[in-house]
Amino acid sequence: MSVICVGTMAFDAIETPFGKTDRIVGGSATYVAYAAGNFVTPVQQISIVGYDFPKEEMDELKRRGVSLDGVEIVKDKKSFFWSGKYHMDMNSRDTLVTDLNVLADFNPVVPDSYQGADFLMLGNLMPKLQLSVINQLKVRPKLIVMDTMNFWMDTAMDDLKEVLQKVDVLLVNDAEARQLSGELSLVKAAREIIKMGPKFLIIKKGEHGALLFHENHVFFAPALPLEEVFDPTGAGDTFAGGFIGHLAKTKDISFENMKTAIIIGSAMASFCVEKFGPERLKEISKADIDERLTEFVQLVNFDIDLV
Amino acid sequence: MSVICVGTMAFDAIETPFGKTDRIVGGSATYVAYAAGNFVTPVQQISIVGYDFPKEEMDELKRRGVSLDGVEIVKDKKSFFWSGKYHMDMNSRDTLVTDLNVLADFNPVVPDSYQGADFLMLGNLMPKLQLSVINQLKVRPKLIVMDTMNFWMDTAMDDLKEVLQKVDVLLVNDAEARQLSGELSLVKAAREIIKMGPKFLIIKKGEHGALLFHENHVFFAPALPLEEVFDPTGAGDTFAGGFIGHLAKTKDISFENMKTAIIIGSAMASFCVEKFGPERLKEISKADIDERLTEFVQLVNFDIDLV
Repeated sequence: MSVICVGTMAFDAIETPFGKTDRIVGGSATYVAYAAGNFVTPVQQISIVGYDFPKEEMDELKRRGVSLDGVEIVKDKKSFFWSGKYHMDMNSRDTLVTDLNVLADFNPVVPDSYQGADFLMLGNLMPKLQLSVINQLKVRPKLIVMDTMNFWMDTAMDDLKEVLQKVDVLLVNDAEARQLSGELSLVKAAREIIKMGPKFLIIKKGEHGALLFHENHVFFAPALPLEEVFDPTGAGDTFAGGFIGHLAKTKDISFENMKTAIIIGSAMASFCVEKFGPERLKEISKADIDERLTEFVQLVNFDIDLV
Repeated sequence: MSVICVGTMAFDAIETPFGKTDRIVGGSATYVAYAAGNFVTPVQQISIVGYDFPKEEMDELKRRGVSLDGVEIVKDKKSFFWSGKYHMDMNSRDTLVTDLNVLADFNPVVPDSYQGADFLMLGNLMPKLQLSVINQLKVRPKLIVMDTMNFWMDTAMDDLKEVLQKVDVLLVNDAEARQLSGELSLVKAAREIIKMGPKFLIIKKGEHGALLFHENHVFFAPALPLEEVFDPTGAGDTFAGGFIGHLAKTKDISFENMKTAIIIGSAMASFCVEKFGPERLKEISKADIDERLTEFVQLVNFDIDLV
């Protein structure tokens, strides 16, 4: 079972109340691959990098069963670079620098070897590019999951709405759900967004967990209460990677299995925030993941007698 | 099994983005009694009201098995009055008016008929008064639950700390937990607060649910995602009433049973916010409560195989 993952592979420079990094590896597709790779191979990347993207990182991804056939390497340009600073509450951040570099020319091409994939993860990217990938696939995947952000709602809403009609699951945060729907109540927002196309909607609330909406059903996954959130960068992408990774592994796209997938996504995200960048994701073992999942079970499990 | 409940019985005037009330009945002990009364009788109130507190409200409470022997009625003064206006997000509010009236003279006296109660709910009140009630009890209750607020941290921290040493469960919201502990991380805040006395700590996060801490364990109860939060006034007291009501009904103060009690508290709070004041709490039946609890089970229940 394979998963195509489209998104950025890039550099970030991050400042949080707890520390500061120089340029480290980041990008939505990088986080998705590191997370999903624990559950399914191959993860088939579609991305673009410059001459400066580290060969060791590429090798590490390959070693984990990530296919890089769809990653274009531009010899005379730099990789996409983002720099940001988190506020004290770690829920909000300021963008300091956005250097598009190679991303300005990104025209994702689906390699022939990727055709026939059952799962497609559209990382946060210009909606036109997300659409282009969908249109290049000769057979529609069983499940298309899409991430996006407020920037595209501000600048490319029509394109975004076109993509929404073609996807199964949309991932947004609470502010984005409100912006996209024009509704303050998340329950009402979900109802409006589901009318736009996706049959499933996941609203991420950071440290407050995530909600999954489908028809008239709602499921809630908490975030693990952590002593310290060291760096939230990539937590949403890691969540997405764990989510689609579990669905692809189990080949089950029912609402019931999506509940489990969201818990697994939350567990993966809880690792991601423990160190800068994807560092922690490279360290963890299957046993670490299972232990963390046990913590999630204990966190929400209760007995009730309804008589 | 009886529960003593100390707190205010008062009038509120409330303005929310959805509407506005004139003076309606409120007060922490009122909400606790309406919620707890669904699970246990008698709820033994200790409070103070003025000549203006409605006889019909007293009768309604009595009809529900609430004992008012400990409620002092002051013939020549008005009841405590609070007026507030909620912001658009419903998570924050401004106090417009606080008329202490009878509350300025409140000296809670525990009636002889209340002695021997197994459960004590100390509603949000001046810490000295909370302490006075504890000291009047000839036999220490099996469980003492205490609510408080930032105002007492600002103005009576020493007294507050003295009460904390004598209670089993503390209820605060996230901002108050941070203020009380000086820690930003709720996990660290919980560890510090538990050192101050209470063996169990509940941190309420409004629409984001509630956390229960005990030793090294943590449990999370979500809030039900609601289409509209009409009026949050009293939600925290209603939560407390459902929580202690269930514990008293089941006579089980284990951590495991507290998890269930928090879910029940959350369910009761989800009714409270649907209408102004305690109105909705007066309408609901046992069947309504069970139906709501089923929604909570569906909201968080998931299957996971750990291999």
